[in-house]
Amino acid sequence: MNRAYEEMGFAKLDLDRAQRTGFPEVVFCEGKADEHLAAICKSLYEEYGELLGTRASEHQYEIVKGAVPEAEYDRVSRIIYVEREGKERKGFVAVCSAGTADIPVAEEAARTAEYLGAYVERFFDVGVSGIHRLFDHIDRIREANCVIAVAGMEGALASVLGGMARNPVIAVPTPVGYGVSEGGYAALLAMLSSCANGVATVNIGNGFGAGFMAAQINRLAVGVERDPNS
Amino acid sequence: MNRAYEEMGFAKLDLDRAQRTGFPEVVFCEGKADEHLAAICKSLYEEYGELLGTRASEHQYEIVKGAVPEAEYDRVSRIIYVEREGKERKGFVAVCSAGTADIPVAEEAARTAEYLGAYVERFFDVGVSGIHRLFDHIDRIREANCVIAVAGMEGALASVLGGMARNPVIAVPTPVGYGVSEGGYAALLAMLSSCANGVATVNIGNGFGAGFMAAQINRLAVGVERDPNS
Amino acid sequence: MNRAYEEMGFAKLDLDRAQRTGFPEVVFCEGKADEHLAAICKSLYEEYGELLGTRASEHQYEIVKGAVPEAEYDRVSRIIYVEREGKERKGFVAVCSAGTADIPVAEEAARTAEYLGAYVERFFDVGVSGIHRLFDHIDRIREANCVIAVAGMEGALASVLGGMARNPVIAVPTPVGYGVSEGGYAALLAMLSSCANGVATVNIGNGFGAGFMAAQINRLAVGVERDPNS
Amino acid sequence: MNRAYEEMGFAKLDLDRAQRTGFPEVVFCEGKADEHLAAICKSLYEEYGELLGTRASEHQYEIVKGAVPEAEYDRVSRIIYVEREGKERKGFVAVCSAGTADIPVAEEAARTAEYLGAYVERFFDVGVSGIHRLFDHIDRIREANCVIAVAGMEGALASVLGGMARNPVIAVPTPVGYGVSEGGYAALLAMLSSCANGVATVNIGNGFGAGFMAAQINRLAVGVERDPNS
Amino acid sequence: MNRAYEEMGFAKLDLDRAQRTGFPEVVFCEGKADEHLAAICKSLYEEYGELLGTRASEHQYEIVKGAVPEAEYDRVSRIIYVEREGKERKGFVAVCSAGTADIPVAEEAARTAEYLGAYVERFFDVGVSGIHRLFDHIDRIREANCVIAVAGMEGALASVLGGMARNPVIAVPTPVGYGVSEGGYAALLAMLSSCANGVATVNIGNGFGAGFMAAQINRLAVGVERDPNS
Amino acid sequence: MNRAYEEMGFAKLDLDRAQRTGFPEVVFCEGKADEHLAAICKSLYEEYGELLGTRASEHQYEIVKGAVPEAEYDRVSRIIYVEREGKERKGFVAVCSAGTADIPVAEEAARTAEYLGAYVERFFDVGVSGIHRLFDHIDRIREANCVIAVAGMEGALASVLGGMARNPVIAVPTPVGYGVSEGGYAALLAMLSSCANGVATVNIGNGFGAGFMAAQINRLAVGVERDPNS
Amino acid sequence: MNRAYEEMGFAKLDLDRAQRTGFPEVVFCEGKADEHLAAICKSLYEEYGELLGTRASEHQYEIVKGAVPEAEYDRVSRIIYVEREGKERKGFVAVCSAGTADIPVAEEAARTAEYLGAYVERFFDVGVSGIHRLFDHIDRIREANCVIAVAGMEGALASVLGGMARNPVIAVPTPVGYGVSEGGYAALLAMLSSCANGVATVNIGNGFGAGFMAAQINRLAVGVERDPNS
Amino acid sequence: MNRAYEEMGFAKLDLDRAQRTGFPEVVFCEGKADEHLAAICKSLYEEYGELLGTRASEHQYEIVKGAVPEAEYDRVSRIIYVEREGKERKGFVAVCSAGTADIPVAEEAARTAEYLGAYVERFFDVGVSGIHRLFDHIDRIREANCVIAVAGMEGALASVLGGMARNPVIAVPTPVGYGVSEGGYAALLAMLSSCANGVATVNIGNGFGAGFMAAQINRLAVGVERDPNS
Repeated sequence: MNRAYEEMGFAKLDLDRAQRTGFPEVVFCEGKADEHLAAICKSLYEEYGELLGTRASEHQYEIVKGAVPEAEYDRVSRIIYVEREGKERKGFVAVCSAGTADIPVAEEAARTAEYLGAYVERFFDVGVSGIHRLFDHIDRIREANCVIAVAGMEGALASVLGGMARNPVIAVPTPVGYGVSEGGYAALLAMLSSCANGVATVNIGNGFGAGFMAAQINRLAVGVERDPNS
Repeated sequence: MNRAYEEMGFAKLDLDRAQRTGFPEVVFCEGKADEHLAAICKSLYEEYGELLGTRASEHQYEIVKGAVPEAEYDRVSRIIYVEREGKERKGFVAVCSAGTADIPVAEEAARTAEYLGAYVERFFDVGVSGIHRLFDHIDRIREANCVIAVAGMEGALASVLGGMARNPVIAVPTPVGYGVSEGGYAALLAMLSSCANGVATVNIGNGFGAGFMAAQINRLAVGVERDPNS
Repeated sequence: MNRAYEEMGFAKLDLDRAQRTGFPEVVFCEGKADEHLAAICKSLYEEYGELLGTRASEHQYEIVKGAVPEAEYDRVSRIIYVEREGKERKGFVAVCSAGTADIPVAEEAARTAEYLGAYVERFFDVGVSGIHRLFDHIDRIREANCVIAVAGMEGALASVLGGMARNPVIAVPTPVGYGVSEGGYAALLAMLSSCANGVATVNIGNGFGAGFMAAQINRLAVGVERDPNS
Repeated sequence: MNRAYEEMGFAKLDLDRAQRTGFPEVVFCEGKADEHLAAICKSLYEEYGELLGTRASEHQYEIVKGAVPEAEYDRVSRIIYVEREGKERKGFVAVCSAGTADIPVAEEAARTAEYLGAYVERFFDVGVSGIHRLFDHIDRIREANCVIAVAGMEGALASVLGGMARNPVIAVPTPVGYGVSEGGYAALLAMLSSCANGVATVNIGNGFGAGFMAAQINRLAVGVERDPNS
Repeated sequence: MNRAYEEMGFAKLDLDRAQRTGFPEVVFCEGKADEHLAAICKSLYEEYGELLGTRASEHQYEIVKGAVPEAEYDRVSRIIYVEREGKERKGFVAVCSAGTADIPVAEEAARTAEYLGAYVERFFDVGVSGIHRLFDHIDRIREANCVIAVAGMEGALASVLGGMARNPVIAVPTPVGYGVSEGGYAALLAMLSSCANGVATVNIGNGFGAGFMAAQINRLAVGVERDPNS
Repeated sequence: MNRAYEEMGFAKLDLDRAQRTGFPEVVFCEGKADEHLAAICKSLYEEYGELLGTRASEHQYEIVKGAVPEAEYDRVSRIIYVEREGKERKGFVAVCSAGTADIPVAEEAARTAEYLGAYVERFFDVGVSGIHRLFDHIDRIREANCVIAVAGMEGALASVLGGMARNPVIAVPTPVGYGVSEGGYAALLAMLSSCANGVATVNIGNGFGAGFMAAQINRLAVGVERDPNS
Repeated sequence: MNRAYEEMGFAKLDLDRAQRTGFPEVVFCEGKADEHLAAICKSLYEEYGELLGTRASEHQYEIVKGAVPEAEYDRVSRIIYVEREGKERKGFVAVCSAGTADIPVAEEAARTAEYLGAYVERFFDVGVSGIHRLFDHIDRIREANCVIAVAGMEGALASVLGGMARNPVIAVPTPVGYGVSEGGYAALLAMLSSCANGVATVNIGNGFGAGFMAAQINRLAVGVERDPNS
Repeated sequence: MNRAYEEMGFAKLDLDRAQRTGFPEVVFCEGKADEHLAAICKSLYEEYGELLGTRASEHQYEIVKGAVPEAEYDRVSRIIYVEREGKERKGFVAVCSAGTADIPVAEEAARTAEYLGAYVERFFDVGVSGIHRLFDHIDRIREANCVIAVAGMEGALASVLGGMARNPVIAVPTPVGYGVSEGGYAALLAMLSSCANGVATVNIGNGFGAGFMAAQINRLAVGVERDPNS
């Protein structure tokens, strides 16, 4: 219980996390003050030699770039990243999304899993209103160690995938929709209610969380522990 | 605006309804006092020569039988009925349900549509957790003038059917489930949020309402107006 | 199950839909990235020779116009459209709305039904606070193959119409109101709870969905199948 | 601020209420322990020479009868009462209810207003699914000093009455219904959202509250103050 | 049932309302298109010689002023008005509010009641956190024919007033607050739950509705019918 | 971090709690299996020489009595207890409740505080519908080190007390009420929204929690630490 | 897409599931009619030679025993089971629960994972109110391939475990609690909101779902595919 | 009951509060009109010689500075203040917060308690996802007379602290989070549901309320009454 953290005054940076979990600390950028964000990213980059920041605005990217010049930014997923060269991606995680508006969340999931060492394939726009589009890819999807199902509105994709997949399905509701589906609660409730086995759910819009757990499962499946210092 | 009704003191029986809507008054039994129920059923049976009572308990059936000896009772759908002999059933309404626990609501829908003159086929236990069971019947379902989709839990059946059907889909959420799906709200929200076109929703457990509208649509499709006095 | 779609990378365009449902794919514009929207509209217009886009901003109209110069825009309903000349409108759909603030949703319903081949009449500002305004038109409304009831606040119009109409009533709650009716939930619950028979409900603000199903019902009533390639 | 009350240990009986409000204390029976209920009713009866107890079970009536032998009980409204002979009923309060299942709440309202000195007429089963039944009585209803609108399900009756009445409409939602209208929230929201002027709402099932305020308004209209000691 | 209204295309102006209710039509400005608002205000002003418009922005006031040059505007209550000279105010309505942030809603109530002929006194900032401020005025408040209680946050003012007033209390929840009281639901529920007799509630922020019903009650109390053409 | 607990297989009894918090473990009886309850009570009684069990049924009391013959039971608060003789009660905690139906929760609070060493006075039936009953006692209440405000329905008592008290007010919502106040949410929201300073809230019906914190505050005020082994 | 199922009239038994998912069909007993339950269990037992039924009442056990005499019943988890002899349990799943009342759900998870081939250890009564009880076992828990966190009330156990575990944490909210935690929504929201990485959530009370996914993850980790016909 | 207040027309300034509660009136700035805010601050400053204003924007600070030139502003907590020189801070209040985004609310609590005379220590970023950061400080935290636990998302910090603290824990949910934790309801429910003893909760974001009650408790613990005129 005498684990390491860096006391930064406004924050206590959890440097022990890589040791505990095998994956380094990731920065949740939304809501952080500019100076805090820059200092945290700099510290983590110095500690690990790589960096992942989620839910970052373009403005925040500029701030981080000032502190970590190597930082890059993906506008779709709103992710800031620096990745060490030559990192191998192993196993197989399938990221499926229902509509085009769900892509930002799906990309956050996919890039998170990739950053944490997983090989990822994307299957976008395979929602149930035209279910033949999903069935054309189902044999490949079933080979994944973990399937991520990203959907807004009625979130039915998770149940359909859960009924077909061999391995765990992580459901991610998105706030895509209007009226009763605005905010993502209809999709959330549907995913939690899934009649299919092997489906668990993360918070609305939490592509990062789904990607993280998928990487954990994939790591178990490939049987290779990642270097906790990387 | 000088339309007919029978003043019964505790109730004003809407005898003009058959004239206005082409279908006779149906009795919602739940919550009615015994003596009121008996009197209403007797009056309607005398007026129309047939009778449909929904959400009836076994006790209520005994009460009604005392007033209308011809009355019969279906324990699954909890429907009391007397139907005129030789009534022809026309067109085609498909009643689909997701799980075995949804059958009582599905039967209420099916029997209501049949009572109002529609030919009905039932497709039970075709929920999305084993979607191949639905696909074996989808070509026949697509021929229906109206499809009724009955489901609890995440209610995904309505969206899958909506994506495949040619004609209207009426979605009926059921209170089947537990946790967040208990009471039927998860299914209701999912059905209202459906990404498929041509899906409208009725109240949780309202098999009667779905069967009624399906009969209206079917009546339009077969192009034969029902005798409003029948 | 080897149905057609166009793989666009970010999307899988469901070209089989016209075949399956008799109506071509319609574009839900809200939330689509500019380049995606333009590409999708162009593809669909080339496939079908006409186009309907709902929930479009003025900016999105400019984008679409760049890709499909024939595109027009209705500011009230926020619809982008190109319609083939000489399209006949058949049957009769009645679109009723309670207040002046409900007109945008009502217009979305009306224009959708018209685009899909239905003859439509509009009955606006016939809410229940001055119910004589509705009764002056009720005889004509009762002749419709399908009635659409658009209302915010307490949504009582749907029940009143449901009690009088012969054919199906599709209820559309709108987010018009403030306090407990803000967002449209009061109207939604009221419409789902309707004591009248033959009322089904779509999502809050979903004029498109109501217009689509009304066109399906009207198509059944007029007994003429639309050319699925049109 | 040195107003009277009777200290009973478990309760402080508000004997000053008649002085403050012109109406004596009424007993809300539900949830009261048997011995408390008996003692409170006895005290109030001795103080005022009459008694009104609402939401009383048959068992509670037996208890009260033991303490106040003159007490009578109405099974429909679940009201216990002793009323002084020769009490005149003045003015006019109209109690309207939508369905037969709403009668218990409507009766609680009617009997409360009568107990507090109002002349009451009942208009039951005038819900909007057969609105001609209401219109046959609307001219008489409009003459009331106050209209009480009792309805469950979608609660549309309040808005229709509010659009026609000259004087205040007090809306009482009831828990009658199932699915989304179960518990009375759909009716409550609809009544609070009413587009008609002059409608205010009380708690779900609070017939007593509506009857009380109607009696207050009626008292103002007839211009005769009730003896505060009666 | 052949009552008057003016068909304006986008609206059906309810000119019969003054006849039915004794008070002329009032304009709810929020959400109305500029050209509709101007046309409606002009028609009503020509019909009645006075005008009341609620929930109006400054921009809308400029629009109305273009059509009705006599129109004035109160920035606190956001009311547009033209009032006939020499209108007498009778009876007594007490408008009480809990905090300074509740004043806009309280002013809407007060000005509405005044416009409809009531004499009004205002008692602002008398919330329960310093209840001695209320008690200094309670004797005067108890003389009112109707008390309006305007409060946000926990809405306790309505219950305290209900326990002391002789005549009806109309409770108006306001959206004032943050956290669980943001939006006004905490106050609304508290007011509907009031343990005091003689309290009814209107929608959150509906000062107009409270002022309207208070004017109705006050009109009954003063025993003078207002000229329905005025 | 090597703190004591007793491993019981089904439970790990937290014997360190008295050391950590100064108060011994209390048993929450509801939902515990009979054999677990008996074993836990026996262990705690042997450890501390006294015992407090909350939310206990009569049946559970019989079970506990079998294991701890000294155990007594209070039917109003549903508390099982054994208290060491001669325990001194210090300081002053005031327990106020709004209505007679709130007494069980108020008693749970009072008895908990007493068990933990506080001197308690009870002020029952002092709700705001007859606020003069509260004011007669307010000077005494203001002398308490901590005030507990127990109320259902609209929960206004907490705000009124908060506006007058010098020391902390702990608000306890109760599930007393019907319609929107059923279950205690209206009171909970009102208490959390309180405009008065110095009010914090515990869970609905959590008299124990309020009594516990009041005893903590009272202990600080009297400046005497309780023997942690007692 | 021509996958196997057994048409039973009331049900379509998904015999293809073992092929698709590697685990045989499990029976959700709650709500099934007696004759349906017996027939389904018999069919599955004949197909697979073993059987798992969840949420079964004692009565249902008697019914199943009539059809499958080898069936046994665990009263705590309410599971009916027949397990083939000599089944090896591999890997490591840790099932942690917060309080004694959470044990039934935790046992459902544990027994499900065991039935599906996982080696399971139980860590009960390690909730956060005495967190040292958890820390004594944390090193062992961290070795699990998957951790199941079962908790009601505020559900904090999932976050604490998520912050310490190396592998996925599946959070199961239980309906244990009262007031705002009754029904399990407080725990559900907390678990979905977890600030820790690697936590996904299943429906309230869904021990089966958690056990199923844990078995999937564990199967990936031990690298041995289960015979899909077993 | 003839207590002092200053009648300002728009407000009745509660000058008696210091007398009643021992702490002077504090200004809730949010939502106040500029001229009202300036006048109120000026009056209070003149009365007490110091000033505290919460939830103030920078613009409001400029307004107040115009009326009270001594006023200062803290941008993090959004507090306006003037504090008398040489004010002693006594006792010990511990303010703990879970994440960096919770700091503004935590600072509001800390500065309020300091203004009211308490000695405060801050423990920021000690959330449960890296619980060793909290345990390094737990011995010091346990010495506080009152602990304030500020957290958003799942709010688990309050329960963990409640399980370890000796004295009261005041839980403050913050609106920090997204999806189901957006707005602070998940944290609020978790805190109200806390399985730990001695935890009470204030409104979402109500750092002021927590600081106020902590100062009350601390005042009792140090046994020194603050001069009510200061």
